[in-house]
Amino acid sequence: MKFKAQVYVTLRPSVLDPAGTAVQSAMKQMDYHVESVRIGKYVEVVLEAENEDQAKEQLDQVCDRLLANPVIENYCFELTNLALVEAI
Amino acid sequence: MKFKAQVYVTLRPSVLDPAGTAVQSAMKQMDYHVESVRIGKYVEVVLEAENEDQAKEQLDQVCDRLLANPVIENYCFELTNLALVEAI
Repeated sequence: MKFKAQVYVTLRPSVLDPAGTAVQSAMKQMDYHVESVRIGKYVEVVLEAENEDQAKEQLDQVCDRLLANPVIENYCFELTNLALVEAI
Repeated sequence: MKFKAQVYVTLRPSVLDPAGTAVQSAMKQMDYHVESVRIGKYVEVVLEAENEDQAKEQLDQVCDRLLANPVIENYCFELTNLALVEAI
């Protein structure tokens, strides 16, 4: 079965975000009333798995080992079974 | 009024994604059955605006000028009125 995962990798709240701070100050200079900007990663993965549980398990491993640095980042993901989407 | 925007910046489909390709080949070496990996940006912005329309207009400007390169990237965003969330 084919699954599409949308993975969101974000810095932990306690971690400074220099890129976000830079965007925030640029926005302030442009007179936008901005309170905060946090920049993370958005990853789309299409993979094959036996079932949804296996897909979730594999994604957890991939996030831990490749996509997110557990020391400074959190991750979450949404999973879509493409077979169901195509059936609609 | 305070709004929270979740902005997704992704490479246009026709644009190569070397970072995504690198993750994809690493996943293959780990025996995952992966079809594709595309890496983009996920940005959370908290800003003040008169109303939802103004917030959308400002976000479009910020995306065009600061967050996305219109030549190679697409963007979309979801907007949440934090006043409503806090009221629940």
